[in-house]
Amino acid sequence: MNEIPGEIDFSNLQARRLALNDLELICAHREHMFLEAGREPDQLRLMTEHFRPWLQPRLADGRYYGFVLMDGEQPAAAIGLMSIEWPPHPSHPSQDLRGYVLNVFVEPGYRRRGLASALMKLADAEFCQRAIGFAVLHATEVGKPVYEALGWAGTSEMAKKIEPLR
Amino acid sequence: MNEIPGEIDFSNLQARRLALNDLELICAHREHMFLEAGREPDQLRLMTEHFRPWLQPRLADGRYYGFVLMDGEQPAAAIGLMSIEWPPHPSHPSQDLRGYVLNVFVEPGYRRRGLASALMKLADAEFCQRAIGFAVLHATEVGKPVYEALGWAGTSEMAKKIEPLR
Repeated sequence: MNEIPGEIDFSNLQARRLALNDLELICAHREHMFLEAGREPDQLRLMTEHFRPWLQPRLADGRYYGFVLMDGEQPAAAIGLMSIEWPPHPSHPSQDLRGYVLNVFVEPGYRRRGLASALMKLADAEFCQRAIGFAVLHATEVGKPVYEALGWAGTSEMAKKIEPLR
Repeated sequence: MNEIPGEIDFSNLQARRLALNDLELICAHREHMFLEAGREPDQLRLMTEHFRPWLQPRLADGRYYGFVLMDGEQPAAAIGLMSIEWPPHPSHPSQDLRGYVLNVFVEPGYRRRGLASALMKLADAEFCQRAIGFAVLHATEVGKPVYEALGWAGTSEMAKKIEPLR
């Protein structure tokens, strides 16, 4: 499970697996990603306060996994992956989990070189190795065309903020 | 947590909580719902084979909860609810879970009386009591307008079948 597929073009960067000391990098990427998507900075600081201690044990025991693309000592982009519990479903009738892709982030200086696509191909290969047959993600507006080009399509998910019954 | 809110109109039916002996009812509802949504019967039989043993321990320990509307001894409609683990997110920055609504089903003879809406209001009240601030679901085409009328809106979720890297 530790091999990086050789056939993906990482634009001369080195791919490696996420490690426990990437905790702050992932927190920064998540915050930056949602900030660029137009979310409120105050809300994001509160989120990170809760996301960091949520992530730490999961990064430590491998429930949160993924990859970083390195330019020498400099992280250029990263992707997070999880195998989430899900009821057996027509899209995965004999499996009670699905893959989840999150916190896909390319540092501003490394954009428009196909790094997000390369990371998504790594995600496919990783899910495949783990025998996960179906995966989901939540796309930002800028991410959507990248994912569509790789075969991802919108679902019928709906959401609601829960408020006291009137 | 065992009270049924009195202000919801159940069209003269009795609302009660799901119990362990509703296992087969829930399995039948899930299969029927996906069949009506156009899924393949063979795939659904396979799904149910795996969904039943997945559901049983969760219904027993309360990880899967929800309600049934009874017409005397006859179940007329039901809804499933779960509190699913989720990373703290801008829509629930200090919570590491979200509500999930599934297997909403109204028996054909009981449709067009607002029972799905009544069940969704019960879901809101239940999530609220459990202090869950954000919830998601996956809508069928017929369900979508019902959910929209109650304040649910589409998300940016995308999905992909994972296949070996070429």
